[in-house]
Amino acid sequence: MSARYRAAVLGGGSWGTTFSMVLSDAGTEVSLWARRPELVRAVNERHTNPDYLPGVELPAGVRATTDAAEALRGADFVVLAVPSQTLRANLLDWVPHIPAGTTVVSLMKGIELGTAKRMSEVVTDVLGVGPERVATLTGPNLAWEIAQRQPAVAVAACADQPTAERLQQACMTPYFRTYTNTDLIGCELGGAVKNVIALAVGVASGMGFGDNAKAALITRGLAETVRLAVALGADEHTMAGVAGMGDLVATCNSPLSRNRTFGEQLGRGHTLDEVISTTRQTAEGVKSSESILQLATAHGVEMPITEAVVGLLHKGLSPADAMQALMTRSAKPERYGV
Amino acid sequence: MSARYRAAVLGGGSWGTTFSMVLSDAGTEVSLWARRPELVRAVNERHTNPDYLPGVELPAGVRATTDAAEALRGADFVVLAVPSQTLRANLLDWVPHIPAGTTVVSLMKGIELGTAKRMSEVVTDVLGVGPERVATLTGPNLAWEIAQRQPAVAVAACADQPTAERLQQACMTPYFRTYTNTDLIGCELGGAVKNVIALAVGVASGMGFGDNAKAALITRGLAETVRLAVALGADEHTMAGVAGMGDLVATCNSPLSRNRTFGEQLGRGHTLDEVISTTRQTAEGVKSSESILQLATAHGVEMPITEAVVGLLHKGLSPADAMQALMTRSAKPERYGV
Repeated sequence: MSARYRAAVLGGGSWGTTFSMVLSDAGTEVSLWARRPELVRAVNERHTNPDYLPGVELPAGVRATTDAAEALRGADFVVLAVPSQTLRANLLDWVPHIPAGTTVVSLMKGIELGTAKRMSEVVTDVLGVGPERVATLTGPNLAWEIAQRQPAVAVAACADQPTAERLQQACMTPYFRTYTNTDLIGCELGGAVKNVIALAVGVASGMGFGDNAKAALITRGLAETVRLAVALGADEHTMAGVAGMGDLVATCNSPLSRNRTFGEQLGRGHTLDEVISTTRQTAEGVKSSESILQLATAHGVEMPITEAVVGLLHKGLSPADAMQALMTRSAKPERYGV
Repeated sequence: MSARYRAAVLGGGSWGTTFSMVLSDAGTEVSLWARRPELVRAVNERHTNPDYLPGVELPAGVRATTDAAEALRGADFVVLAVPSQTLRANLLDWVPHIPAGTTVVSLMKGIELGTAKRMSEVVTDVLGVGPERVATLTGPNLAWEIAQRQPAVAVAACADQPTAERLQQACMTPYFRTYTNTDLIGCELGGAVKNVIALAVGVASGMGFGDNAKAALITRGLAETVRLAVALGADEHTMAGVAGMGDLVATCNSPLSRNRTFGEQLGRGHTLDEVISTTRQTAEGVKSSESILQLATAHGVEMPITEAVVGLLHKGLSPADAMQALMTRSAKPERYGV
């Protein structure tokens, strides 16, 4: 049987490589672009990515190349899996090779620094493609578990339902169940804001609080994400789904989450400088919390948890003061500001 | 300062006792009814409930009695904290002593066996009170953590907003933040269905699956709870809140959850009989999964996770088959059937 679709996956990190495996298992032809020749050789000759997925055997159908033009030739889907802050520069390099009519799929969960743009907005800026050709694939998708073919769900989001359905077909397997959603904005915001909430959950955990406090922060964190999302034109239902609560719950629970771990150190009483000096990679939520709060302020949206995280990170608030500020706000109905 | 409100808390288990502490800390006068004289003496003389909250010092304002008539005298709120299946019989005993005009508040999360009625429906059946006088207090409230005065949120739900606000005032403290909600049906359903989903999460965990699978079951479990809730006249937004996802997340994460632990044993390959024989108390979700599925079938609602749990518990489905059935359903949009 010949493949229904052909996908170019641009980026050979853990998630780009794992998603290549998912696509291949779903019957999609995959060309994986990576920068380093030794990684490309490892994928092609030994079906492995020793740096990011040691011990995982990749399907023979996943072929790698260092040549983006070659990877992109004839692609129905261009899947972007590079670091968020390098996307714009990378896209400028790739523009000449991106086939007309292809669908561009972001796997990234960042907000561009400076512009405060979502990844799909960066794609539209650089490539000038219409909304029916920009999508995201998101959800509670810890790469390592999916590389073991453990069950997971995801959402294929595009403003255009037929495009979302084609992406769904291209990556649905018995272990990777994909739903469609036409709310691209909501799906992207869910992925970005969850990192800030995971920081707050980490702080509470570091202070010694238990499952009630964690559930409270997750629930009220999602409530403030809904308020922001609605103000930015998203559908609030998205936040109750895979890209919202699903991704948030997985991130807040996983011991592998950098944001949660970073917050835990703060909650134990370490200063920001101490935590940064002992952390190899900065947690994404540290960067994005300020721009998310700026967006909220600009749209008149209350985001008390994000505000507490910003206060903690950048304004010298103590963890105890931040928690106190959250718990002693005025009495409210559960649902307000939407 | 004299107390604004007077509450009778009926039931001296861990949650009834802990909520008495919350009420007292919020400035409400509390009379706690318990059946056993030695428990009443321990509360009144030593400010402790050694059976359920060993080591916790209760506020001096919490006074206990074995005399329900005494506890109920002049109560603005009658707070019910007895086992779900004994509620009807207990209420019949208490009817003559329940003051006219009082608000009846359920702390229970069961569905009555046989009638498939929510606790508030049982209250209405027996007491004949109007909807503006029946409330529930629910959320991610593991009693032990609250007894340590760790931060938690809850929702005070009543069809009548002023009543919900009075209950909110009666129990809001710096460590117990209460929101109001007028969707009583949704708040009660959230508490009941979560036990079934927690069983499924336990099964996945027992099979060795990780945080993606857990987040998937929580998210899609909430999606099917929404479908049922809407069919029964609830507001779907409730499920994205404290009584829905909040309670679900805390229950699925807590190592103290009987439902999760029960599911874990099944996921490890033990038979239902084996698990029951090694478990002191039956998990609530085991009882309620069938009646919830009956409700779903009667209303034409798809609840695939509940169905898988019923198949596993009562129809000889293996954990692997149940998981396979969930993952290979037809491709769908994320939001359907609402």
